[in-house]
Amino acid sequence: VKESELTADAAERGNYRHYMQKEIHEQASAVARTLADRIENGVALDTAFGENAAAVLDKTKGVHIIACGTSYHAGLVARYWIEQLCRIPCSVEIASEYRYRSPVVPDGTLFISISQSGETADTLAALREAKVSGYVSTLTICNAPESSMVRESELAMMTNAGPEIGVASTKAFTTQLAALALLTICLARRAGLEERQERALVAQLAELPGLIEQTLLMDKSIEVLAEKFVDKHHALFLGRGVQNAVAMEGALKLKEISYIHAEAYAAGELKHGPLALVDEDMPVIAVAPDDQLLEKLKSNLQEVRARGGELFVFADPRVHFGENDGIHTMRMPALIQDFQAPILYTIPLQLLAYHVAVLKGTDVDQPRNLAKSVTVE
Amino acid sequence: VKESELTADAAERGNYRHYMQKEIHEQASAVARTLADRIENGVALDTAFGENAAAVLDKTKGVHIIACGTSYHAGLVARYWIEQLCRIPCSVEIASEYRYRSPVVPDGTLFISISQSGETADTLAALREAKVSGYVSTLTICNAPESSMVRESELAMMTNAGPEIGVASTKAFTTQLAALALLTICLARRAGLEERQERALVAQLAELPGLIEQTLLMDKSIEVLAEKFVDKHHALFLGRGVQNAVAMEGALKLKEISYIHAEAYAAGELKHGPLALVDEDMPVIAVAPDDQLLEKLKSNLQEVRARGGELFVFADPRVHFGENDGIHTMRMPALIQDFQAPILYTIPLQLLAYHVAVLKGTDVDQPRNLAKSVTVE
Repeated sequence: VKESELTADAAERGNYRHYMQKEIHEQASAVARTLADRIENGVALDTAFGENAAAVLDKTKGVHIIACGTSYHAGLVARYWIEQLCRIPCSVEIASEYRYRSPVVPDGTLFISISQSGETADTLAALREAKVSGYVSTLTICNAPESSMVRESELAMMTNAGPEIGVASTKAFTTQLAALALLTICLARRAGLEERQERALVAQLAELPGLIEQTLLMDKSIEVLAEKFVDKHHALFLGRGVQNAVAMEGALKLKEISYIHAEAYAAGELKHGPLALVDEDMPVIAVAPDDQLLEKLKSNLQEVRARGGELFVFADPRVHFGENDGIHTMRMPALIQDFQAPILYTIPLQLLAYHVAVLKGTDVDQPRNLAKSVTVE
Repeated sequence: VKESELTADAAERGNYRHYMQKEIHEQASAVARTLADRIENGVALDTAFGENAAAVLDKTKGVHIIACGTSYHAGLVARYWIEQLCRIPCSVEIASEYRYRSPVVPDGTLFISISQSGETADTLAALREAKVSGYVSTLTICNAPESSMVRESELAMMTNAGPEIGVASTKAFTTQLAALALLTICLARRAGLEERQERALVAQLAELPGLIEQTLLMDKSIEVLAEKFVDKHHALFLGRGVQNAVAMEGALKLKEISYIHAEAYAAGELKHGPLALVDEDMPVIAVAPDDQLLEKLKSNLQEVRARGGELFVFADPRVHFGENDGIHTMRMPALIQDFQAPILYTIPLQLLAYHVAVLKGTDVDQPRNLAKSVTVE
């Protein structure tokens, strides 16, 4: 029995050493499936979120996103998108915190739960609470069609990532972002986004599978880079704006599977405390797209270098950080638009965590102390 | 010249070895000064926030709090209070993030900036932006009456903590909480808080100076406890609900002055990642008041023990965690009400960070890489 299980397991993994590795490399097709049938003639379809979604979205004047762990980070990305493009307030909260206070629900607020399994105990309890809290409706973004959250939410959108076996979530996260990007477009249309602008954003989403494949070509160079982290006990991940949430996700990945104490900070908060930790034993990883915050980020990173911190920057191909002993710049292999950046910059951070864990010899797919779905509180 | 400076310095510090130590021990009188003249006949005065505050508070239907570092943690505590007691939405955001996105400002939203110095560059820039963003008004909670933020805000409340010299903020934080507690009461009155309830809350605030003195008596036992942290490189701080923000502040203090990589987590998030880090090298510090979340917290802490993590719990005197080798319980010296808890549970965490730093021989008042006021971005 044991043997046949292993054989089935190996067959499912194909040429990959771990499920996590397989799932990282499946992200182009997973995101393509999330977008498929939800885009028509270059615009995003309200029906992606359910048959009655259009009426709900018409009434939506604000959004509360509730989730845990990696799904919470997807929510944090969506907050930037929704406030910026839809001009409605969006708050994001950890489910275990949300459910034990009595949050205020302004009129017209849509409740959104995000969960890979649809069974996360705290998120499911929050959803049940939300159904009697005066929300305009409940929407779940989920990867498991038969799950409790999908059954109990009024609206649902499946991420269609396919089964995710590795405990550290990868393709579930990037497909959640794709789903939230579609939602942002549908809400933004109601806030005055012109059709021309919508088509431009949808076109950016349609490019994602190809860009993900290109980004995955960083695999080999990140495998080499990972050697620099094997003996480290700490890491700081820095981002600004929407990339702050990407940095949080990168830190969580490294924590979960390599057991390195990685912590993320909004780069602007460095001077308010964490800079005291920076020395030669604290590598600093930064995500640096070519956006309006780049110059600010550069100045934050100079402070890190001035304190002796070794710097690893995942950067836009057009960005120059000046190469020297303490700065390692990994250029993204393509030009990336702002709306695409959170999905694409996540990928090298997943690869980094994966290769560090492999080098450290941890149980990548089943890291110690963690379960795939947290179905108890 | 050098000599006379040192003499003046020693005179100011009195019998204390460091300014930070002095400032920790001044918190009873500092909080008393914050409350003085702001309470009359057992009720909180709107005029605490300025002559025109009553009219502004009447119109306030929501709150945005913007701050950095320790002041941001004070805002996070206030969020729990304001949503719970005033039933209006409250969001709290790091200034360096807030100012570079275009946040949505619902009608009737009050902008609150919190800063010890009143000169924090990102917070001041956020305030200037807020003044042209359609807020109902701007209020600053500040310790420096001549500062830019006080001059430029329409409303202001001084914390009256007296000069704070230590870079790691202590009395500024607890007096900010006292100010925010008064604000919560003034807003809650408008949301239907009855006079009897208001008097009960105000009476709890009036007890704070005495309770702070009692809490400071933990000093000697925490000095002993600190020895267990001298050789540690990591720590996790856990709280739930309003104590999550207290745990964040405790972790920041340890980071700033002892250079231990301390990170705070909402205890309910443990299973979603950080539990992978827990082993015998990762001490876990928890704040455990006797509130509605205690049983949930206990169950989170059992998971930590099951993974070999050494546990340090600051607990209500009525709470029993079961003493054994891996659990150290420090009981608070008095019964503490929910509304008092964030201020009082902060104090042992300040003392812990202080004594660990002294044992490690760091420059307590001037930790490496940090400045007292962050007046540049």
